[in-house]
Amino acid sequence: MTQAEMSLNTFMTRSREQVDSALERWLPKTDQQPQRLHEAMRYTVFNGGKRIRPFLVYATGQALGIPMKTLDGAACAVELIHAYSLVHDDLPAMDDDDLRRGKPTCHVAYDEATAILVGDALQTLAFQVLIDDTDLPGNAQGKLKMIQALANASGSRGMVGGQAIDLDSVGRQLSLEQLETMHMHKTGALIRCSVCIAALATLNLNPKTLHNLDTYAQSIGLAFQIQDDILDEESNTEALGKTQGKDRDNNKPTYPSLMGMDNAKQKAQQLHAKATEALSQFGHEANVLRELSRYIIERHN
Amino acid sequence: MTQAEMSLNTFMTRSREQVDSALERWLPKTDQQPQRLHEAMRYTVFNGGKRIRPFLVYATGQALGIPMKTLDGAACAVELIHAYSLVHDDLPAMDDDDLRRGKPTCHVAYDEATAILVGDALQTLAFQVLIDDTDLPGNAQGKLKMIQALANASGSRGMVGGQAIDLDSVGRQLSLEQLETMHMHKTGALIRCSVCIAALATLNLNPKTLHNLDTYAQSIGLAFQIQDDILDEESNTEALGKTQGKDRDNNKPTYPSLMGMDNAKQKAQQLHAKATEALSQFGHEANVLRELSRYIIERHN
Repeated sequence: MTQAEMSLNTFMTRSREQVDSALERWLPKTDQQPQRLHEAMRYTVFNGGKRIRPFLVYATGQALGIPMKTLDGAACAVELIHAYSLVHDDLPAMDDDDLRRGKPTCHVAYDEATAILVGDALQTLAFQVLIDDTDLPGNAQGKLKMIQALANASGSRGMVGGQAIDLDSVGRQLSLEQLETMHMHKTGALIRCSVCIAALATLNLNPKTLHNLDTYAQSIGLAFQIQDDILDEESNTEALGKTQGKDRDNNKPTYPSLMGMDNAKQKAQQLHAKATEALSQFGHEANVLRELSRYIIERHN
Repeated sequence: MTQAEMSLNTFMTRSREQVDSALERWLPKTDQQPQRLHEAMRYTVFNGGKRIRPFLVYATGQALGIPMKTLDGAACAVELIHAYSLVHDDLPAMDDDDLRRGKPTCHVAYDEATAILVGDALQTLAFQVLIDDTDLPGNAQGKLKMIQALANASGSRGMVGGQAIDLDSVGRQLSLEQLETMHMHKTGALIRCSVCIAALATLNLNPKTLHNLDTYAQSIGLAFQIQDDILDEESNTEALGKTQGKDRDNNKPTYPSLMGMDNAKQKAQQLHAKATEALSQFGHEANVLRELSRYIIERHN
């Protein structure tokens, strides 16, 4: 393990612990009515997820000199949106997944109706956390901008829109541009929001800084997706933790299938370079963000 | 038709037209990607609903001297939350309803996956409308309070919580208190929010006024539910537009079944009196609110 990887790992662990303890505080207790719903919400949120989005919130905060505690609400909010989208994605009418991270999905552990309500309530909670969070700096106007960023990233012109494009593309041949549009909505919007929402917590934020961080976020979001597609082709099933070649076999369009493996790898490298370049105004305080970008295209699972 | 009923009807029609034209502006256009999702969102929202919640927003505004246009965003927001809850409620895993107001429900007209996403996106849109609405008076702090009221009414400790309590009560005997708790969450929370959110648009709102309006909203919300149960027993199927005695046959707890028909009718009358009493500080400007309260317990369908 290199020095950089170690510090990335350390920060990831710290972020995960930080957001988990904040989520613990914000999620309704299981002794509160309706108990079963609250239990299912917690089951869903504490499922061993990697907390990549909260990591991005905190790491952006580190680059901008914002203490972790200040960003707990924002980190929870993006993770709650992510968690709600997974519960609904796993439903029989959607991806019909019985397992997530080796554990029964919410509708299997509870029931479909509960899983629908869990997703609905987690979405609401994401907004509630941002509204009620008293650690956020700045005025109400700044808070409104953060809520706005979250809503824009989540709705029919953001994440949910991406899921709808994905549904519509089943059995159809997508162009490279359409594939990119789908990913930029489905996963890209919330990744960009995670970086942007942390930046919005800065008082007197320089618009140029926001633009650069957004370029970084867009680049790593896309690089992540391309590397996912590459791994789906090249990695063996054991390292991947899921069946290798699954996307290709399901006739899902992937970057390697649309642009060739060599071009896909080159594009991932270019996006890593672009992400790093976008951080050039920062010193060592943005090292974790840089390391994440390299990790994304070098990872094996 | 009495004078009062006429003015109630007139205001209802005006409210419906006002909110429908605002919803038309706020809902994404169907030529915008993803088109099918946006089409399904519009199909769901423009389903011939009565727009009771927007009516309450505007009627409260009338009592407080707030112009209708100022409250368009708030009226849309509560209706969008209501609409999202209906789409998800109608899903096969929930109430499994194929028809709503004589038209195929969203998952029948489109498909289940789309209906799940439609509900998700409508919830997000409700928050977006409140955030982006520039007609709302006052400062960002006031807007945050309105968003907070909407979130609290919608989440696991509000409307969604009520749906979860309803699910949990299937096949179980509820006490009167439990029945009331269920209704106060499932439908009561959003009805109260509709009144409260309009009041929050008043600059320098007197807390006593807010309290009185909230008492009004709580009373009519409960009265509405009791009258629904009474009609389910007494009205004939034709007048009701649904099968008479359906709730009793489904072994669902109702007010008449738990407290007897006479007591249920008396309770509805008491709530109407309480609602009217709560409006005593207002003059004729609160007449539509008063008329609504009477209509609720005198209606035949």
